[in-house]
Amino acid sequence: MLTRVKSAVANFMGGVVAGGAEGDYSGSELPLKFPYTRPEFLGLTQDEIECSADHIGRPILILKETERLPWATGYAEVINAGKSSLNEDQACCEVVVVRKRPGDSTTPIKTPTAKRRSSLPNGEGLGLKENSDSESLVFHYWALFDGHAGSGAAVAASKLLQHHIVEHLQSVLEVLRNHAVLPPTIFGEESNHHMTPGIHRATLTRAASLRGAAGAPSSPCTPPPQRFFTEKKIQHDSLVMGAMENAFKEMDAQIEREKQVYNITGGCTALCVVYLLGKLYVGNAGDSRAIIIRDGKVIPMSTEFTPESERQRLQFLGFMQPHLLGGEFTHLEFPRRVQRKEVGKRMLYRDFTMNGWAYKTIEDEDLRFPLVYGEGKKARVMATIGVTRGLGDHDLKVHDSNIYIKPFLSCCPEVTVYNLNQYEHGADDVLVMGTDGLWDVLSNKEVNESVSTFLANCDPDDLYRYTMAAQDLVMRARGVLKDRGWRITNERLGSGDDISCYIIPLMYGNRQP
Amino acid sequence: MLTRVKSAVANFMGGVVAGGAEGDYSGSELPLKFPYTRPEFLGLTQDEIECSADHIGRPILILKETERLPWATGYAEVINAGKSSLNEDQACCEVVVVRKRPGDSTTPIKTPTAKRRSSLPNGEGLGLKENSDSESLVFHYWALFDGHAGSGAAVAASKLLQHHIVEHLQSVLEVLRNHAVLPPTIFGEESNHHMTPGIHRATLTRAASLRGAAGAPSSPCTPPPQRFFTEKKIQHDSLVMGAMENAFKEMDAQIEREKQVYNITGGCTALCVVYLLGKLYVGNAGDSRAIIIRDGKVIPMSTEFTPESERQRLQFLGFMQPHLLGGEFTHLEFPRRVQRKEVGKRMLYRDFTMNGWAYKTIEDEDLRFPLVYGEGKKARVMATIGVTRGLGDHDLKVHDSNIYIKPFLSCCPEVTVYNLNQYEHGADDVLVMGTDGLWDVLSNKEVNESVSTFLANCDPDDLYRYTMAAQDLVMRARGVLKDRGWRITNERLGSGDDISCYIIPLMYGNRQP
Repeated sequence: MLTRVKSAVANFMGGVVAGGAEGDYSGSELPLKFPYTRPEFLGLTQDEIECSADHIGRPILILKETERLPWATGYAEVINAGKSSLNEDQACCEVVVVRKRPGDSTTPIKTPTAKRRSSLPNGEGLGLKENSDSESLVFHYWALFDGHAGSGAAVAASKLLQHHIVEHLQSVLEVLRNHAVLPPTIFGEESNHHMTPGIHRATLTRAASLRGAAGAPSSPCTPPPQRFFTEKKIQHDSLVMGAMENAFKEMDAQIEREKQVYNITGGCTALCVVYLLGKLYVGNAGDSRAIIIRDGKVIPMSTEFTPESERQRLQFLGFMQPHLLGGEFTHLEFPRRVQRKEVGKRMLYRDFTMNGWAYKTIEDEDLRFPLVYGEGKKARVMATIGVTRGLGDHDLKVHDSNIYIKPFLSCCPEVTVYNLNQYEHGADDVLVMGTDGLWDVLSNKEVNESVSTFLANCDPDDLYRYTMAAQDLVMRARGVLKDRGWRITNERLGSGDDISCYIIPLMYGNRQP
Repeated sequence: MLTRVKSAVANFMGGVVAGGAEGDYSGSELPLKFPYTRPEFLGLTQDEIECSADHIGRPILILKETERLPWATGYAEVINAGKSSLNEDQACCEVVVVRKRPGDSTTPIKTPTAKRRSSLPNGEGLGLKENSDSESLVFHYWALFDGHAGSGAAVAASKLLQHHIVEHLQSVLEVLRNHAVLPPTIFGEESNHHMTPGIHRATLTRAASLRGAAGAPSSPCTPPPQRFFTEKKIQHDSLVMGAMENAFKEMDAQIEREKQVYNITGGCTALCVVYLLGKLYVGNAGDSRAIIIRDGKVIPMSTEFTPESERQRLQFLGFMQPHLLGGEFTHLEFPRRVQRKEVGKRMLYRDFTMNGWAYKTIEDEDLRFPLVYGEGKKARVMATIGVTRGLGDHDLKVHDSNIYIKPFLSCCPEVTVYNLNQYEHGADDVLVMGTDGLWDVLSNKEVNESVSTFLANCDPDDLYRYTMAAQDLVMRARGVLKDRGWRITNERLGSGDDISCYIIPLMYGNRQP
């Protein structure tokens, strides 16, 4: 990810301490929220963590024991080729129990009770069969965070995001477990579906007029029609999606809050997969990617959020709230920088409503720098950042200015759902999660071919096969060191970025209740 | 479309004059911009126009002569079952010449020169072979407009939209014809790709710092790098898309302007297809739909814009500019109307960032009516309108209030492109365009089956087959009058809405240069 936050924001890249694995340093006097580390499930010693940061050899780290992760999940990672001292990717994988909070059925949310946590990420030691307890739910959780401008946000999110998911699932635990149809309101008696006579006056007036507007007979003699109160049927899936969406928002808010008292550098993308009640939920904010490979075919499970893919959202925001542009940027897109001597000429442009291009006569204010500029991996918001969703970045400003970039970034994930029980999955059907270091150099098709070929050559009963496949995949994306740098097949450049990936076999989901 | 603007806005439905085909009447003192009519290419007499408005018999109108429309296009329409006196659908089909404006290569846009127009919509009489003239371009144009709350906007758009497309294509005519690669600027000497020393001071400062930010060496000794000026390569397609996008905007602006001096009632959706230089461009703003049927398979060419499909855009706007909600609406979505006595309880809600749902504790301000409310065909923006893109509606307000709905509506189309030359098309490969009256009762699959079966039973050389297929399709959507109303297959309800559709054979596109 480092390539995506350019040198102009070097002052934000405090996470980099040459050769050190001690943690972030950004000139801040504040204590670290969490020290720099590698994923807990790798079980590395401090020595091993330091050795892993070898930018010359770039050793690929894999799991020592297959059983450490649920479903025999494979994992592998490698550090970048020297762009930052530390590996700014982070990962987390756990089996998590969501327990009922005391008093949940009658009172609003209070601080969550501590959840019992397994000593191993694979869930052993939790002492319960999945969802056997009528008062709790168990979910599996895999997450990747790709940090930039420091590893603080990525480390914090890797330690905390799952707790926010727990908290939001706790508040819908009873509904998820006990209701075939979700009630629109909870914590109270059945609501009366007719208008109450004592209703607030202004509300009644508007409600009455809107009732007419909503399609009911508008005669004042007509009794309030039942269908005005038609309820939208909400599916259980939607509650889990909502819990994940709000968990990302709370995670981002927590980073913002705790930056007051801790040193939490930079920002990070977040990609997480939750397995709950037979379904996989993939939440993505950033440019990591998840795909499912089933029967040798690719099913994309996420989309990337970049200045190009989110151009219209960014331009719309800049258009609606021009003060966010600080007088330095224009919300219009141009194919290149406009020069002063071109004022009065006509140049190609694109507004937030457009996917096509047209010519406009250049005016003075078009000399401002375009809010969205550049193509592909070089596309940037405000000439600074190349990813438009994620956590953190609250202090990120345009170089040498007081213009904050955060208002243009979104912490909200897109959540997709995959029903594991709708298909029978074989041993080679997997979900692949990777940071952009992987996908920058390998296409979905190439990853599919690599993984499928690799797994086809393994013993289907060897639980270690997914770890080996992950190692093979990271190796293919990193390449080998030749005279002119890291090279992959066909003499293409290998990825010089941090690369992390999970390979999650799907057949284990089918075997569970 | 009438069903989508409800009785609460009856005061806007001035277009309806019982039995009359004279035009719109809305209590306005202003003269009509255009009188009510049926599509010009139907060649109806005034008597026939009046007879067509028979809500009991609902006669299906078709082309009298196949040759009237280009490519032997089929067309059929039927009026609604009594919801409005007039048929608020409108249609236009023409072959249009775009000629160079004098002085275009050296001066900015002035008023366009009159284009020469064929006496027949099929282009006969234009006196030129398509694109044979190096100074002009020819495009084919098919359009449908579905009016609501009066027919004024639909009639005006059916007369005028193509002229706006001409005007925008005129300004890129030379570039489209003469440049393999589109120049980012036009009307002037080749621009110098290096920074000019005399550049405006403030611009230089920012430009220099941003140049660093954009990835170039930031040392002050480094000469301004060439790659800072990397140009985005724009395709010709994009210019046609841009021309169509801006044409819709200008059409909407023209309606707004001319409402000052003419009586132009209501609003309308707009769906148009432009065939230019071997490609079909489908522009859609509203809930009409275009599909291609090729080799018996459906290729969707448009998406519908409704309160449900555009929920997040609408909520985002309401969140960013809360004054547009007039203190009466909340940008949050609830599964049903919140009642005062539910304050303090927790209810399901959805914010603009969410696709899932979560519970929130109801506060006083949640008693406001949801900006987006209802499901499927009953979904409404501000309890008023069920379509979120289109032309007109500048006066549309929430019933009994001063809250304008227009800021939430967009006049911008989504434009899709289909390269006709990439495929060989047979006689049964067609593009079907229809207003929502068609698609409300027939799925893509059903339309495909009907059209494909019908065409397979026709003589492939009979040019009248597309007109007959259109008639058959409208008949299937309207159904037949039984005891309990209009019925289609399986005793389902037929469409009581206005229904209009084109069936455009694609093989004729292949045969042209």
